[in-house]
Amino acid sequence: MIDVSEKRNSRRTAVARAILRVDRTAIERIRRHEIPKGDPLEVAKVAAVQAAKNTSSLIPYCHPLPIDFVGVEHELGEDTVTSTVTVKADYKTGVEMEALTAAATAGLTIYDMLKMFGHEMQLDVRLISKSGGKSDFQAPAEKASS
Amino acid sequence: MIDVSEKRNSRRTAVARAILRVDRTAIERIRRHEIPKGDPLEVAKVAAVQAAKNTSSLIPYCHPLPIDFVGVEHELGEDTVTSTVTVKADYKTGVEMEALTAAATAGLTIYDMLKMFGHEMQLDVRLISKSGGKSDFQAPAEKASS
Amino acid sequence: MIDVSEKRNSRRTAVARAILRVDRTAIERIRRHEIPKGDPLEVAKVAAVQAAKNTSSLIPYCHPLPIDFVGVEHELGEDTVTSTVTVKADYKTGVEMEALTAAATAGLTIYDMLKMFGHEMQLDVRLISKSGGKSDFQAPAEKASS
Amino acid sequence: MIDVSEKRNSRRTAVARAILRVDRTAIERIRRHEIPKGDPLEVAKVAAVQAAKNTSSLIPYCHPLPIDFVGVEHELGEDTVTSTVTVKADYKTGVEMEALTAAATAGLTIYDMLKMFGHEMQLDVRLISKSGGKSDFQAPAEKASS
Amino acid sequence: MIDVSEKRNSRRTAVARAILRVDRTAIERIRRHEIPKGDPLEVAKVAAVQAAKNTSSLIPYCHPLPIDFVGVEHELGEDTVTSTVTVKADYKTGVEMEALTAAATAGLTIYDMLKMFGHEMQLDVRLISKSGGKSDFQAPAEKASS
Amino acid sequence: MIDVSEKRNSRRTAVARAILRVDRTAIERIRRHEIPKGDPLEVAKVAAVQAAKNTSSLIPYCHPLPIDFVGVEHELGEDTVTSTVTVKADYKTGVEMEALTAAATAGLTIYDMLKMFGHEMQLDVRLISKSGGKSDFQAPAEKASS
Repeated sequence: MIDVSEKRNSRRTAVARAILRVDRTAIERIRRHEIPKGDPLEVAKVAAVQAAKNTSSLIPYCHPLPIDFVGVEHELGEDTVTSTVTVKADYKTGVEMEALTAAATAGLTIYDMLKMFGHEMQLDVRLISKSGGKSDFQAPAEKASS
Repeated sequence: MIDVSEKRNSRRTAVARAILRVDRTAIERIRRHEIPKGDPLEVAKVAAVQAAKNTSSLIPYCHPLPIDFVGVEHELGEDTVTSTVTVKADYKTGVEMEALTAAATAGLTIYDMLKMFGHEMQLDVRLISKSGGKSDFQAPAEKASS
Repeated sequence: MIDVSEKRNSRRTAVARAILRVDRTAIERIRRHEIPKGDPLEVAKVAAVQAAKNTSSLIPYCHPLPIDFVGVEHELGEDTVTSTVTVKADYKTGVEMEALTAAATAGLTIYDMLKMFGHEMQLDVRLISKSGGKSDFQAPAEKASS
Repeated sequence: MIDVSEKRNSRRTAVARAILRVDRTAIERIRRHEIPKGDPLEVAKVAAVQAAKNTSSLIPYCHPLPIDFVGVEHELGEDTVTSTVTVKADYKTGVEMEALTAAATAGLTIYDMLKMFGHEMQLDVRLISKSGGKSDFQAPAEKASS
Repeated sequence: MIDVSEKRNSRRTAVARAILRVDRTAIERIRRHEIPKGDPLEVAKVAAVQAAKNTSSLIPYCHPLPIDFVGVEHELGEDTVTSTVTVKADYKTGVEMEALTAAATAGLTIYDMLKMFGHEMQLDVRLISKSGGKSDFQAPAEKASS
Repeated sequence: MIDVSEKRNSRRTAVARAILRVDRTAIERIRRHEIPKGDPLEVAKVAAVQAAKNTSSLIPYCHPLPIDFVGVEHELGEDTVTSTVTVKADYKTGVEMEALTAAATAGLTIYDMLKMFGHEMQLDVRLISKSGGKSDFQAPAEKASS
């Protein structure tokens, strides 16, 4: 664990994205609200918020921190569900692990609710941006597209 | 949550894989044991086992289940760290969510320990195989290569 | 903690109900999907399932047990939100505490999402029925109405 | 989850009350220290404090917060056990959900320890007062009686 | 983590003991019920039961298991508080880690409640006996004294 | 729970030590990296950090607090494994319970991984030093040896 006792609080924001590649018929079922377990996007939103708050018990060397905000947005593509998570805190450490953990959990929750349509889904998770610490970060593809 | 009260126990196994794409210099640092926070592969192994046991509190509609085994193997590539997790249980439901959650947590833990070398890492998670329930599953690429 | 080592598994079911008395305008807002934090009924459903699985860590002398099913139904009245939770397990102990804890958590979650409309809500929680142990239970009012 | 990143800390206090209606013989047993599992009031006190600290993992959109104090008082009536919980924090959000969750958990814990005398108990939970945020709250009945 | 998928359930019992060496005046305060935070022995009993149920999330390679019983007894000596914990389960693995973790937590909880009288306390934890697996165990001193 | 609402933050440090007395052959096995479950010292380090962060849910009247640092060092003796844990925080309460809980968990984790060589191990836990609150503490033996 990094010693942050000499650091000062600063406003931290991080955005992470999980893309779950799924079968097109599964996307159709989500749009028609035909998933037996419930609405995967609503459930994944709750799971992501809970996971963000729980990050320091999942990732061993993460510091526990007071989270100001977790926002979760889902987007349905042709054969993808994209979950974008924004986390904010005013603290000594960044919140990128919180955003990444929440995004991954959103994706895994959707996976769990769609797995009755087949297990060939693939989950990709990466950081989109972070700001507020020593150095900001912006993912290359996002930079290009803006 | 699916009602499993009418189901019987059967031996379940699932294997999931997380591939973290990282900078080559980070791989070199792992090989030379030069990561300041400790050995990412050892820490990720513990985190993955803990996450597997914790799956039902992370993924809302997963059933709590008595895990018989969690095995974690890491492999260093040129610019990848591959974490393969095997989970076993003798239960009414499959253990694929446990394997996927553990693999994702392994990848996120390694991410956390390597992020000082840059945040451009990408994590891919998918199921490799499952057996023991109504239908077995084998990921296509794995089928081809065997 | 009661020693259950001499007991055998049997099929257990319990139903508990939480009634949250709220302002009529809040009910209207739920019906119109105008609650800023999201849909309270969907969020409460997830929270209730998670709470049922977490009961043994909240209620000190409850045994941890393998839950087969948690079902959550909400009903909107004129000035009430009623959450009915059904829990099933095949175990040595009953699941009434799991049902009660899940119902209470559903009510508290809805409270949290409606409190911007005033804090004068009241939450009532009770057991509706249980079956599967030494003696079954049926709440008096329910008996009368059936 | 509400974004509290622009809010400032202020001193927050909340008081919540749970009233468990029970059989008179159960009250007599508590007074005579004849409950086999132990003293329900002592156990409920510990459970309530633990629940207050655990609120943000139970109620999905609650912020984690640094709790300064949790106080639990029980009062035995003729056929009621009343648990009053006070929570304090110096934070951006109120602590009413912490007080309510702790009071509900106190009531459920006592329920668990008394259920051998019958399951016809009923738990009522409500907020008594809160102070420290934009607007204070005092429950009507309490206002009248003071 | 050891793979227990080929093992069968058997009745397991383990007894562990924690001895906290404290100042004599602290013992006197416990006897006179003069500890400001409450009765350390009652609180430690609850904490020990909770810790036993929580062992698999604390000790990384412990299996989660269905606990049948946790019993906690305290004994006050001249300058010691002895906490003896018995754990039972019908499972594939032993319950000695559960008993040890619960006993250690009992001792730490008492430490926490007595630390206002000085921090020179020392906690000793060891296994007294285990039975039900491949080989039983009885601590030497206990053998001699019986 | 002590009310700390009137207290101010100050820099807190605590050091605790767990000594696990084990069989000499077990020490030899650790040195030769021959423990089947993995390297006990690496696993215990992760477990100790996680336990420090989890202290307020284990020890009932501990306040949750923002931990700045957890450091874990192990030392192999002839027949002992000594785990020394340092915890830092900038908070209203001390961190001695966090250090003690982490040290105890390190010792219990090593016990778990060595118990295949016999259960006659004994764990001793005590506080070495604390600073930052009203009064500092230094364990007598440590004072003498310096």
